[in-house]
Order: sequence, then structure tokens, then C-alpha cells
Amino acid sequence: MALRLGRLGSDPWWRAVLGDYAQLRAASPRCASARVCQLPGTAGPQPRRGLGYGPWARGGSGLGTRLAATLAGLAGLAAAAFGHVQRAEMVPKSSGARSPSPGRREEDGDELARRCSTFMSSPVTELRELRRRPEDMKTKMELMIMETQAQVCRALAQVDGVADFTVDRWERKEGGGGITCVLQDGRVFEKAGVSISVVHGNLSEEAANQMRGRGKTLKTKDSKLPFTAMGVSSVIHPKNPYAPTMHFNYRYFEVEEADGNTHWWFGGGCDLTPTYLNQEDAVHFHRTLKEACDQHGPDIYPKFKKWCDDYFFIVHRGERRGIGGIFFDDLDSPSKEEAFRFVKTCAEAVVPSYVPIVKKHCDDSYTPRDKLWQQLRRGRYVEFNLLYDRGTKFGLFTPGSRIESILMSLPLTARWEYMHSPPENSKEAEILEVLRHPKDWVH
Amino acid sequence: MALRLGRLGSDPWWRAVLGDYAQLRAASPRCASARVCQLPGTAGPQPRRGLGYGPWARGGSGLGTRLAATLAGLAGLAAAAFGHVQRAEMVPKSSGARSPSPGRREEDGDELARRCSTFMSSPVTELRELRRRPEDMKTKMELMIMETQAQVCRALAQVDGVADFTVDRWERKEGGGGITCVLQDGRVFEKAGVSISVVHGNLSEEAANQMRGRGKTLKTKDSKLPFTAMGVSSVIHPKNPYAPTMHFNYRYFEVEEADGNTHWWFGGGCDLTPTYLNQEDAVHFHRTLKEACDQHGPDIYPKFKKWCDDYFFIVHRGERRGIGGIFFDDLDSPSKEEAFRFVKTCAEAVVPSYVPIVKKHCDDSYTPRDKLWQQLRRGRYVEFNLLYDRGTKFGLFTPGSRIESILMSLPLTARWEYMHSPPENSKEAEILEVLRHPKDWVH
Repeated sequence: MALRLGRLGSDPWWRAVLGDYAQLRAASPRCASARVCQLPGTAGPQPRRGLGYGPWARGGSGLGTRLAATLAGLAGLAAAAFGHVQRAEMVPKSSGARSPSPGRREEDGDELARRCSTFMSSPVTELRELRRRPEDMKTKMELMIMETQAQVCRALAQVDGVADFTVDRWERKEGGGGITCVLQDGRVFEKAGVSISVVHGNLSEEAANQMRGRGKTLKTKDSKLPFTAMGVSSVIHPKNPYAPTMHFNYRYFEVEEADGNTHWWFGGGCDLTPTYLNQEDAVHFHRTLKEACDQHGPDIYPKFKKWCDDYFFIVHRGERRGIGGIFFDDLDSPSKEEAFRFVKTCAEAVVPSYVPIVKKHCDDSYTPRDKLWQQLRRGRYVEFNLLYDRGTKFGLFTPGSRIESILMSLPLTARWEYMHSPPENSKEAEILEVLRHPKDWVH
Repeated sequence: MALRLGRLGSDPWWRAVLGDYAQLRAASPRCASARVCQLPGTAGPQPRRGLGYGPWARGGSGLGTRLAATLAGLAGLAAAAFGHVQRAEMVPKSSGARSPSPGRREEDGDELARRCSTFMSSPVTELRELRRRPEDMKTKMELMIMETQAQVCRALAQVDGVADFTVDRWERKEGGGGITCVLQDGRVFEKAGVSISVVHGNLSEEAANQMRGRGKTLKTKDSKLPFTAMGVSSVIHPKNPYAPTMHFNYRYFEVEEADGNTHWWFGGGCDLTPTYLNQEDAVHFHRTLKEACDQHGPDIYPKFKKWCDDYFFIVHRGERRGIGGIFFDDLDSPSKEEAFRFVKTCAEAVVPSYVPIVKKHCDDSYTPRDKLWQQLRRGRYVEFNLLYDRGTKFGLFTPGSRIESILMSLPLTARWEYMHSPPENSKEAEILEVLRHPKDWVH
């Protein structure tokens, strides 16, 4: 097994920096006891496009409930992956919506093992349990987020060509755990983190009451409400100022009532933070997301695009964090399968929406002024994540949270200059204008 | 008038970065319309020591009320200067406490003009008004914070020897304004900011009720409660990893009731954030603060030292921001004069407690590893200021706040590495141990 510590690994000080981690349970055969290991086969399967039909989107604007935040809070470490708390439903397409073909078992034992062999590590849930419930949404979503993690890590490592992802498995005392993959100080990427978490436990009475306060009827049995929460979350900061930062996150929740009734919903999004405006990149990114959404309904993209612009707003600066993308939460209609297919389509759109842009710019020439402006924009990124991002704040203030996974989203370096304001008509002023007044990139 | 833009000024891009600021009213003759100007005479008077007698200190531990935060919030931009909100009284010394000699007018017109000529800019309050009320605490405190700003700027500029302070005057629509002096990317200092603000207006009903909720009887006249809030606030980040960061802040509040009765109190503190532990530096810093406090009572230093360790705690990391210093708020006894004298002694202790340490270390040799550790500790500084510091958060979320003055406290650059943990018995582990378990440096 090839142990490649990347460029950082030679000096003993750095080996100490990357030293072993007591809580790491390297269950995967490929990563025995080591913390850094070779990606499992760089030529993994190409991401499958969306399912080509889909029924629903309902307006994002009147969608604001705090359900996910409550559960995100309870999921403790899950909070590291779940930062967004308004609510979205999908409006049924006017006609021709086809439900998934009933009866065909998608996975059997060997196929599961084959899929798992392409992951960065084995799933959090034991394979035996996944095999026991192949059609359960918890199984489908866990396999999907593991697949997404591997696809994104593989694509990024390929672009970087020098540094590798470290793979950290961690366990959560109260139930479940996660896998955090981080590539740091590579050739192309300053810092890239792709983290999954699968956690379960019992909702506290306080959280259950909060949900009841928002219209959920939750019948508890001896005050217990079992929940499961899982998701994939990633932030990618390239070195080159002309290659943009990108964040994405897709998640699924289940809460089981005493009478066996289960409440479920999905949440997520994907947004781009360029240092400088590149019209072509903005159009490519948004068009790729729109094409993914359009497979499931014409109204989805406009609604979730606006919701994204509203969420990533740095109030005290009067600016958005970036040029947006899509953002949704509490997605629980028209059916679990349809909503899952939508989320799967979005997750599969991450690599094609972003990697071509990084490949295009990672070797662009740039000046100290460009790098300075990037670092100042990284400062804004830190301000948003620490002051406004609900998942980050909730996770930091939830006892037992895995701080390193939560703050994985912060850039490797950032800069704050007093009274820095770019000259009029400069390319810095150009991006600031768009961050202050979001644009429509696809019409 | 010598306009020295410092090392940054030659390239036109940097001139744009330091360009003119619309809201700047350069009232001071020395700084006509320019934004950056020569310090007023580098050989200003040496800082006078404390008054050598003083009566009072009452325990910091049971002192927690949120009075100052309420008012700090109302003072809007003042929030940039007032970050601390527990309450402290001074316990009367058992015997021999002497009140100030009555009747001698401390300042006359010429003396005021002479004092003002040593400031970084003319006071926020018109000189005519200051002359009208020489014995008023508002006058004494405004002159003291202006003097402190000039002393600290002068001492730091002298140490740096290359970059100069930019001097920004700003006005607050609701009443008052401030002067923010910043030295950036100098020879010795990465970033040094020394800001004063003097603001006034009417307490809102909500703020008045909050105060009543904490024991203040506030009789308003047609629901008006005039207040004045002023202070000096500073954060200094040297370049050399062996020269520590330092923060200090001293402030004064007044709230006038309908019947002419005035509520007043002082707040403030001073704390040191080294990258590496230097026993001699820690002892020098704490001993200098203790000597200042001891002039006003034997119990003051131990109480305000503990309070400081408690306040600057990064909860999610389980670490203090630094090795502490002193910290107090709501100081309103035994008399206004005595409390002012204590605060004045503390302000005068800033330069002697800190500048010798910077002079000693600013040219120390250091390695990339040392610089990296400094930058990681700067990341912790950002985490504390954005997630926990009440003045910063209150200021950022108060409409009309001067964001640049509030975020002046953030370092020029910072770094976040995933899972960085120093080797055992390293000098990095040594400082972490002290940040996790505060020490007594003077016994």
C-alpha cells in the first residue's frame, strides 16, 4: 500500500504535524493504520447524469422554517455538515411524472462491495447492515454521499497532481461517525476538504418541542424520538487567484415517531466564490447547476438560486460571499425517491460544474496584487463562516463536536487590511459590484 | 507638512489602496487634507507614573452584570472600543485614603492647547467645549484617551522606524465620532491600530429597561436618557513570531437621569498574546500591570487578572487567547476621581509593559516553522474576536457601526491548518499548555 505523505511529509516537524490520531479507526483495508494513503484507483466511473425526468419545485421564497437547524444541532457533529435551515418543497411537474420502476433490487451483495471499493474509506455503517436494508433511503443516501466524496476527492487529486488527501475516520460517542478527507498545501489546492458524517441518536425533548412549534406532529414513546442525519460537505480553496473557491453540501434527515411514522427531508446546495469575475466561468457554473435542476422541474433553479444569494449574505459588509449557486432545505416532497433523485443529480453536477473551471485557471499567471486581493476575499470568507454560517456556529457551540471537521471550511490563509478599497473600474471593483448586486447568469 | 506614505506608498495601486476617504474631516492643522501624516514630534513627554495612593478593589468574581454591553450597543461605533461587560468595584483601602486636593484648576487655555498639540489629531469635542468644563470627567477622560493614543502611537512608530500611522477621523451621525490610527505592514509591526471614540446620544427605552433590570433606577424625562461613552482601544500585531500581540482598552460611560443625577462607570483591560512562551516577558508584562494596580489597592491585580483569564477563553478550543493581563468593567466606586486615577495609571502602564518586550524581540531570528506557528495562533485570535468578543459582535450587528474600526483588531494575516497539533515537549506545546492552564506570573 503506497503511503504518500505529499510534499509536506519529508521534514520530521511536518511528520509530527501529520502524526497519528488516537481516535482514528482505520477500518479500510487500503488505509490500515496510516493516516495518508493513495486514492483508490484514479480512473473511477464517470459521474452518471440526472434521471432525465422529475416532477417538482415549489417556490423557495416563502420557505423559511428552522427545522433542519434544530435537528442539525441534535446531530452534534452532523452540524459540521448541515449549515442551512430554510425549507423547500418541490412543486409537481404539470404532467408525465413517472415514479421509479417498482420491484427491481438495485444492489446485491457483490455490487455493494464493488461500490464500496471505490470509496475513500468503508462506509460508517457496517456493510452487513447496509446489505440488510438495500432499499432503505438511509442506505441509498449513505452510499450516495460516499460516492460523491470519492468522486470529488479523485477529481481534485487528479487536478492537483502532487498532494494527496489525508483520510480521517472519526466516531461519535452518541452514535455514528464520519470520514474527513483533506488535501492541504498542494500544487493547485491551498486547502480542499470533503467530509461525510452519518450520525444517529434520540432527539432531545427541547428539539422535539421546537419541531412541534413548527407544525410537526411528533408522537414520542417514553420521550424518545430516534433520528438519523447524514451528509457530505466540502469547501475547496485553490491557490491561483483566478481559480474560484467552491462549497457544496447535501444531506438527509429522518425522525421516527412512536407509531412508526417517519418524518424525512433533504437539504443542500453548491456555491462559487471567485476572487475575480470571469463571465464564462460564472455562466458555466450556473448553467451546469440549472441543467441539473431542470431535469426535475423548471422552477427549481430560479428559486434555489435566489435562496443561495440570500443565505450567503455578509450583512455587516453588504456583500455576498460569492456569486451564489443553489441552496435549499426541508425538501420533503413529492416523494422520498423523487427528492433523492434530485439531490443525487445535484451531487453529480458538482465535479462537472467546478473542475473544468479549476483546470482552466490553475496555471494562469498572476501578480502579487492578485494574490493580495484573493487573501482579502478569503478574510471575508472567514467572516461569513464564523459570524453567519449556522452549521459552523451550531457545531462549534455543540459539546463534543469535531472542531477540526467544522473549521475545515476555513481557508489555509487569509488577510485583513484596514480601509482597503479597490480603485474604481478595477477588476476588484468589478467583482465587488456583483457581490453587492447579484446577477442572473443564465438568461 | 511631511507626507510619508510609508513603504507601501510608491506603487499607484497602493496609493489607491490608501486613497482619500470621503468621510475624513482632517481638522488637525498637521493633517490638513492628507490621510497619512508625520507623528506630532517623536520626542513627546514620558508617560507619568500613577498617583501613588488609591483606595479600592472589590472582587472581580461575583461582578458579572451586562450594563456596559447595553450602553456599548447604544453607543454604536463606541462598541468598536468597548468589548467587555462584567462589573467591578474597587474595595476602599482600610486606612489613609486621601481625596484629590480640592480647588486647584488643573488645566487653563494654554495648557490645553499645549496638550492637544501632542495628540494624533485634535480631540473629537471642540476645544471651546473642553475649556468650558475643565473639571468635568468627560473632559478629563477625553484628554486622557487622546494622550494615551498619542503615547502608544509615538512609541510604536519609533520602534518600527519605517511605516507611519494613518490617521482617520470619522463622525457619527447620531453624535460624536472618533480617530482611528493604523500602522500596517511596517518593519516591525504587521498591523497596529489605536482607536479612540467619543459618542453621545439618548439611550433607547429598551436599553434603559435593560439597565433597570440590573438594578439601575433610571428616571427618564419624556423617555429620554442622555448618555456619553468614550474610550481608547488598540490591538498590536508584530511581524516577528517572538514579539507578542497586545490588546488594551480603557473606557468611560455616563448616563444622565431626568433629575440631573448621573450614573457613571469605567471599564477596560490589557492582555498579551505571545506566539511562544517567554518567561521573562510574561513576568515583566504582568509585574508592570500589578505595580500599576497595587498603587490603588492590593486586591485589584489578582481579581482583574483572573477576570481576564476567564474572559479571553476560546471555548470550542479549550484555550485562552493569550497569557492574559487585567480586565474589568462597571467600575463605579469609591469615587469618580479615584476610579479615573486607577484607569489613568493602567493606561500609562501600557507602553512600559509592552514596548520593551517588542524592542527586545523585533529583530530576533526565526524560522519558517516559527512564522507558521504565529500565523496559526493568529487564526485563533480571529476565532476569538469574531465568535466571542462582545464588543466586536455587538459593533458588527449595530447599524451604522464603523466596520473598519471594529475589525482593525484582526491580524493582517492568519492561517488555519486541518488537524495541526505540535509535537510533545515542543515550544509550541509549551505555550499551548499555559493557554489551557493559566499561570500566576508574579508570585
